[in-house]
Order: sequence, then C-alpha cells, then structure tokens
Amino acid sequence: MRIDLNSDMGESFGAYTIGHDAGLMKSITSANVAAGFHAGDPTVLRETIRLAKTHGVAVGAHPGFPDLAGFGRRELHVTPREAEDLVLYQIAAVAGVAAAEGVRLQHVKPHGALFNMAVKDAVLADAIVRAVAAFDKTLILFTLPGSEILKAGRAAGLRVAAEIFADRAYEPDGTLVSRRKPGSVIHDAQTVVKRAVRMVNDAVVVAIDGTTIALEADTICVHGDTPGSDALAAALRAGLEAAGITVMAIGRL
Amino acid sequence: MRIDLNSDMGESFGAYTIGHDAGLMKSITSANVAAGFHAGDPTVLRETIRLAKTHGVAVGAHPGFPDLAGFGRRELHVTPREAEDLVLYQIAAVAGVAAAEGVRLQHVKPHGALFNMAVKDAVLADAIVRAVAAFDKTLILFTLPGSEILKAGRAAGLRVAAEIFADRAYEPDGTLVSRRKPGSVIHDAQTVVKRAVRMVNDAVVVAIDGTTIALEADTICVHGDTPGSDALAAALRAGLEAAGITVMAIGRL
Amino acid sequence: MRIDLNSDMGESFGAYTIGHDAGLMKSITSANVAAGFHAGDPTVLRETIRLAKTHGVAVGAHPGFPDLAGFGRRELHVTPREAEDLVLYQIAAVAGVAAAEGVRLQHVKPHGALFNMAVKDAVLADAIVRAVAAFDKTLILFTLPGSEILKAGRAAGLRVAAEIFADRAYEPDGTLVSRRKPGSVIHDAQTVVKRAVRMVNDAVVVAIDGTTIALEADTICVHGDTPGSDALAAALRAGLEAAGITVMAIGRL
Amino acid sequence: MRIDLNSDMGESFGAYTIGHDAGLMKSITSANVAAGFHAGDPTVLRETIRLAKTHGVAVGAHPGFPDLAGFGRRELHVTPREAEDLVLYQIAAVAGVAAAEGVRLQHVKPHGALFNMAVKDAVLADAIVRAVAAFDKTLILFTLPGSEILKAGRAAGLRVAAEIFADRAYEPDGTLVSRRKPGSVIHDAQTVVKRAVRMVNDAVVVAIDGTTIALEADTICVHGDTPGSDALAAALRAGLEAAGITVMAIGRL
Repeated sequence: MRIDLNSDMGESFGAYTIGHDAGLMKSITSANVAAGFHAGDPTVLRETIRLAKTHGVAVGAHPGFPDLAGFGRRELHVTPREAEDLVLYQIAAVAGVAAAEGVRLQHVKPHGALFNMAVKDAVLADAIVRAVAAFDKTLILFTLPGSEILKAGRAAGLRVAAEIFADRAYEPDGTLVSRRKPGSVIHDAQTVVKRAVRMVNDAVVVAIDGTTIALEADTICVHGDTPGSDALAAALRAGLEAAGITVMAIGRL
Repeated sequence: MRIDLNSDMGESFGAYTIGHDAGLMKSITSANVAAGFHAGDPTVLRETIRLAKTHGVAVGAHPGFPDLAGFGRRELHVTPREAEDLVLYQIAAVAGVAAAEGVRLQHVKPHGALFNMAVKDAVLADAIVRAVAAFDKTLILFTLPGSEILKAGRAAGLRVAAEIFADRAYEPDGTLVSRRKPGSVIHDAQTVVKRAVRMVNDAVVVAIDGTTIALEADTICVHGDTPGSDALAAALRAGLEAAGITVMAIGRL
Repeated sequence: MRIDLNSDMGESFGAYTIGHDAGLMKSITSANVAAGFHAGDPTVLRETIRLAKTHGVAVGAHPGFPDLAGFGRRELHVTPREAEDLVLYQIAAVAGVAAAEGVRLQHVKPHGALFNMAVKDAVLADAIVRAVAAFDKTLILFTLPGSEILKAGRAAGLRVAAEIFADRAYEPDGTLVSRRKPGSVIHDAQTVVKRAVRMVNDAVVVAIDGTTIALEADTICVHGDTPGSDALAAALRAGLEAAGITVMAIGRL
Repeated sequence: MRIDLNSDMGESFGAYTIGHDAGLMKSITSANVAAGFHAGDPTVLRETIRLAKTHGVAVGAHPGFPDLAGFGRRELHVTPREAEDLVLYQIAAVAGVAAAEGVRLQHVKPHGALFNMAVKDAVLADAIVRAVAAFDKTLILFTLPGSEILKAGRAAGLRVAAEIFADRAYEPDGTLVSRRKPGSVIHDAQTVVKRAVRMVNDAVVVAIDGTTIALEADTICVHGDTPGSDALAAALRAGLEAAGITVMAIGRL
C-alpha cells in the first residue's frame, strides 16, 4: 500500500510569516506551493521550492483567487475565461520558478474558495481543467472524490488524485462534515493516525453516524496553518510507515 | 542589413485599456509583453500572446516593479534578491502562458524604472541577469548600448540586443537627450524613418549637437502608448523595407 | 418638480484613464466618487473632488469591493463585518479628502457588485447601512426602489434616495430588464429624455411589456463610461430643464 | 516631567498577524495606526482603534508607501503631488474610522521609508506637511529632531513632537547609530529604562563615543514587532513612573 502526504506551503508574504513550512517539509511528500495571488510572493515561492527540493518533496502549483486580503478563501465570481487564465498564469509562474531550480512540477491543487467552488460548479471546473491541460497534460490534478472537478479532469484525460482528510469527520455520503458542526475536526493525533491507516489499507472510513463507507485515497491533506501541524504530520508519517504503508510523492507511484 | 522592431504590449488591466496593440502588431517583429506586475493581467497577457502569434510577432517578457499604481515607472529600492526573484517569476509566467499557446519565449526586456535603474546599477543589473540565465540561457536580453546591464548580460554569456530609439535625440556620448530638454523627441514620421535607415545601414546617428556618432543597433523601440504610434510603426517598417533592410524578429536573425 | 442627476466619477487609476469626467461634470449635480478599492487612487480622488467643487457638483462616496482587477463588478463574498468595515473606510477616505478641499460629503452610493448584492441580501444591506450611520447619520443613501438596502436604510433612519435609469428598460415589476435581453438599453437620446421627463413629472414609466408602472424618482443615474455619455447627460439636463424641472443636487432639495 | 510612549499598531493584514498590539496597548500612550497602504486593512484598522480607545491610548495615523509586499520599508520615488495625496488619503481614512468610534485623531507619524526619506528630503517633507495641514492644522506631527520634516512642520505652523529611541545608540551628532554597526541596539531592559529616564529628566543621552549630548524628547518610540516588545514597554512605563515622570499621551500634555 502507498500514499502521498500533501500540505499547503509558501503562504508567507513579504514581512508576514504564516505556516510551519520548515517543520512540515520533513514529513510530507507533496507541497502545494502558493502562486502569489491569494498568498506567497516571488521570493517566498522560490525559497519554498528550494526547501522542497532539499527534502525531496514534490512540488505542485496552488493557484487561488487574486484576493490576498481574503487569503483566497472568499468566493469571487470570475468568468470561466478569467478563471482559466488566472489558473494558467499561476501554474506557469510556479512551474517556471521550479524549472529554474531544476525541479519538475508534479501537480496542481486549486486553493480555498476556488477549490470549493470547483467541487460543485462544472463550468468553473472545466475552466480550471482547460488551464491545466493547456499547460501540461501530464500534471496530476488534486481534487475531492465525487466532485465536478474530478469528473472534468478525468474527461480531459488528466491524471486525477483523490484527496482525503484524516483529521476531518465524514458524512455518510462521503462529503466532509461542515466545520460549523461539533465533531467535524479530529484533534487527537493517534485517532487521526488510525483513521489514516484504515483509509489507506482498507479504502474505508467510519462516518460520523457510525456507518463504514468506501473512500478512494491517493493523497492525504495535512493542514499547515494550525498549531502543532508539524507534529501531527510527523506522527502521521511515522504511523503510516509503522503500518507498512509506503509514503511517497504521488508522481513517483 | 537586418533589424528588429519591438514595442511594449499587453499593458491593459481589467476594465482599463491602454495602448494600440492590435494596430502595432501589424508592423513590429518583437512584442515585450507585460507580466502583470506593473501592468497587464492573466487574460490580457494570454490575449496579447495570441495576437502576437497570429501576426508572427516574437514574444518577450517585460518584467517590471510590482507597482501598478505607478505603471512601473517609479524607482522602487528592492534588494538584489527581491529583484532577481520578481524578474524570474515574471519571465516564468509569460514563458509558461506562451508555451500553452505554442509560442517559445524569445527575449526579456525590463520595464520602466527597473530598466532605467539597471542601466546604471551594476548590482541590480547582475540580479536581473541571474534571473534570465537561471530560467533560460538562450533568451535574448534587450538593453541600452553602454549600460551596466548589457555588460552584465555579456559577462553571463547571454545574447544581448542593443536597443535604439529612432524618435529620440541623442547626446554626443550616445545617451538619450532627456525628455525635459527641447528637441528630445522627434515627431515627424519621415525624419524618424530617415534616422532609422541610417542607424541600421551605417551604424551611426547624428547627435543633437550635429556630430555623427557610432551606434550599435539590433532592435528599434517603437513607443506604443502615444497617439499615432501605430501609424508611425507602419511608416517605419515600410521605410526600412523600402531601403532594402530586412525587418524581422531578432531571434530569427 | 425637481430631480438630481448622478454619475460615477474618478474611476481612473495611475496611468489608466477611464470615463468622461470633465465633460459630465458640466451636466450632473451629484458625483459618486470612487474610493480607491474598485477604482480610483488618492490623486485621482482629490482631482475629482476639486473638479466637482469647481462645477458646483455635490460629492458622494462610491465604495466598492477591493477588486481593481474586476472593477468591483464581480461578486466577492465578504463577511458582514468585512463589508461594514470596508465601506466605512472608503467613506472616511472620500469624506476626509473632500473636507480638505472644503467640501462636505452629501451621499453614499455602493458600486457594482456591492450595490447589486445589497439589493437582494438583507444582511449585507444592513452591514452597509451600519457603516454609513456610524460615520454620519445625515448622509443620503442612493439605492434602488424596492431593494433590501433601501429598507435597511429607512429602518436605520437614514435619508434614502430612489435611483432610476432613464436609459434602461423596466420589467412590469419595477426591476431593470437584464442587459442580456434585447431592448434592455435605450440608445436614442430623445427617447431617454422623454422617459426621464415623464418619470419625474408623473412618477411613472412604461415597462417593456407596454404597461405603465409607478416609480419613485429622486435621482437619475447617468452612465459615465460609455461613448457619448457626456452628450447624453447634456441632452438630459437640457431636456429636463426645458420641461420646467429643476435639476439640482439632492442634498440641496 | 512628562513623556509620551508611542508604538506602531494595526499592522496585521487579513489572515496575516504581526505585532503584539494587545500587550503593548497596556503600556503605551499613543498608537500609530497603519492606514492600509503598507500594512493593515479596514477591519484591522477599526479593531485597533477600538483597542486603543479601551485602553485610553491616543490614536494617530501612520501613513506609508503603497507597498504591502515591502511593508513600506522600500524607497519608492513618488512625485511630491503623489506623496501629498497618498498621505492625505490615509490620514482621512484613519481619522474617519476613528471618528466613527468616537475618537479624535491626535497625530500623524509617517512610516518606514516614507519617514526616513522625509528626514532628508525637504521637498517630500513639504508634501507630507501640506497633507497634514490640509486635513487638520491641530494634528501633531511626529518626527526626528533635526530633520527636514520637523523644519517643514514648524514652518507650516504645525505642532511637532520630537521622537527619541531609548533602545538605540546615538552618534555624537544626535543621529541614530546604523543598525549595521555593533552596539546599535540596546537589548537590556534596565539599561533602556535608565537611558529613557535620563533622556526625559535631563534632556541628554550618552552617545556611543561616551560624550553626553543634548536631545529634545517629546515621545519615545517603542518597537512593536520584536519578541518581548510588550515586556520592554511595560518595564519602560513602570521605570519612568517610578522615577516620578508622568507618562501620558502628548496631545493631553
């Protein structure tokens, strides 16, 4: 059994520092690097790619809405054309800076509101997929199982990775329990590790109502901006490996 | 004899339109495409590259300071590291969007204050050259004859193009007459054409004091944001060709 | 009978020029001045206020979403708290620059998507109204008849102005015909003038289906960014005055 | 003897947090509140003013260059007209938001590179002073002793406060020792407190060469973005009060 561990990286901006990049890079296998629209800047981007290279972590582009004030978490109703072009631009920037550091881009993971909107909006999903495909058809698209963007990616012939969340509760239909509901986030590291091992080994998860549901799992998302996220990532990696699971970047699988 | 004609392109932004791109593309051979920091946006950038491709015009990156409010024309004292990284980011973005349109990047021309500062500041010039070389050592760097950045580019083994201005008066030392002085800009199209032909055929120009001075000339800059710039560009191209000079993109020479 | 004529002003930004401010100021009575988030900059803002003062035109704040790339026309899902604070900030900026020029702020008109969303979204409407009331309870709020923001403004005790569009077709329910439908915009100046006169004198308009509907009318919106908008504004003012209607800023009524 | 303690506040932006505002507000008497150009946003600005009001801390505007990426610390060569207008806009925004919270603006302190450039550049200093005076001639201008901006402020009839740094070494000519030199910053809290008491009580400081020099002192700057800055501020206030010095906002002196 094999699994990828991904985390959002490079979200600092100028004098503003956010996240625990140096700590997390020791445990993850794929870095989603902010492209400068919702977070990140050219120097942070390059530094993050160098850090990933040092740790043998694969690099992906993490495009978001042009909304630094909202950290890309606010819905912005751009046209499909605007969405396609702003995703293409951001992939190009990350890929080009990575190439200058001798690193080949592995994947694309849309950020925040862009990601969430593309889960349900087929037109937006298509626009994002067109941008990825126009740039490089071998890039892996990170998405939610069952989402419009996963469908759009497969229809376009892209390799698509199903992302799961070991520290989040699931509804019986396979969607995430809303953060507004009690029990939506799992804080105990050992519980998170056990869930992750079961998700990978058995392709199932116990939903919030106690039922066991099936779940595709190509990569596990590790949140980077919460206190203790680097310790959780380390525990997760150690726990997965102790269970005999190979933890490696998805592009190398 | 051969010459390249270049112009700044793709400087519109969202609802704001600037320049005469559609008209100029008919006459020029190299487009310096704004990269989104001092001007341009992802949709304008892509549209401009498509327009260049349609007209067989070569595409270059036109990186500038992150100062949309000042159109990149105000000195901004970034560190050499910041300069290197913001130039690399912008080259990467333009090159990647061009690649998605099947176009290979030909050149890099720094914009506005970044260009002017790098003429005299050897440290900044080195930073820009490092960015170009890190991205692609075959890119052509557009610069002023006699500048620090031309020296830095040559020292790094880059191909360097000397840019001249057919509609600007020259001092006897080969620098441009300041725009604040009378006679600095030549408005008569036929005079501009005659100067251009002589610059290319004889590698000389008559300076403002009447002396004839030598001048390297690889590419002529056509200003795009002045009224009538498209007509001047058309006259320039026609005049050069009528004089038996081949007008073509420098990367194809 | 009396009416106010308002137009969006001060939407240029740095090197980018938009609109026909100098021409329109001769005909309008209230200027909605961009506050620097969706358009405008500090120098344009101050210049626009000076221009309004010279022409005896009343000054209002025209706050929008922080989305220069989208000119404030794209929906951005900010929280009520964010909406309140960004509207307050923009009103403060315009009012303070106006005060430095000896001009007292007359009104507030939200811009673009912020305006359109507040027509239907009672929570957002309340947030905007809270910002206006926190700054100055004597400011006049420009809104659509029948909108949530008009209701919220009245509930908070603000003076509210009903805005009408002489160059737009109306549905029988008093809403505007969508720009995507044929016949939504009326281009003939004389037809626009006749409609405006009837709107003011009889408080009615003929809807697109031929029925005559009642319509409150405190201020007529003159679009400033279309070719010929200054000529239309001049025709509108002349036509209204020829019909015996007093055209003056609403705050002076 | 009386003294004011000031610190830069409200420099967080969206998801990015910087500084120790809540801790420092307990000890300082004047807050320089970021205006949204080099740092801060509308919600942070309003929250900071509320926090200052709660602690009885006087509020000032802290205008900077429009350079969030550089935190306003990079020289940006704007024209005098641009400088005047961008300072006026920022003062207006802070003053208006403060007024909505029932707080009257006390002072203006330019930030970072804008401050440093105005120390030496008389033309820029005049532009800043014109903006302050145009907005409100009773505002207090915080500046360095001996600077061009202090001269310009006095010439325009503004009340000017001389700012000193208790944790920085001085050259014999009264300027600060460059941060690049050893001994430029004093880290020991008790030494800082002793220096501050002597600066206020005797209007002198011992320079880095051991000579005792005279020094005007109206307000002491407390750096807010360094670890332990809140503890240093508390020690400073306690030490000054223990020495019988009244610590209060300069506008109340």
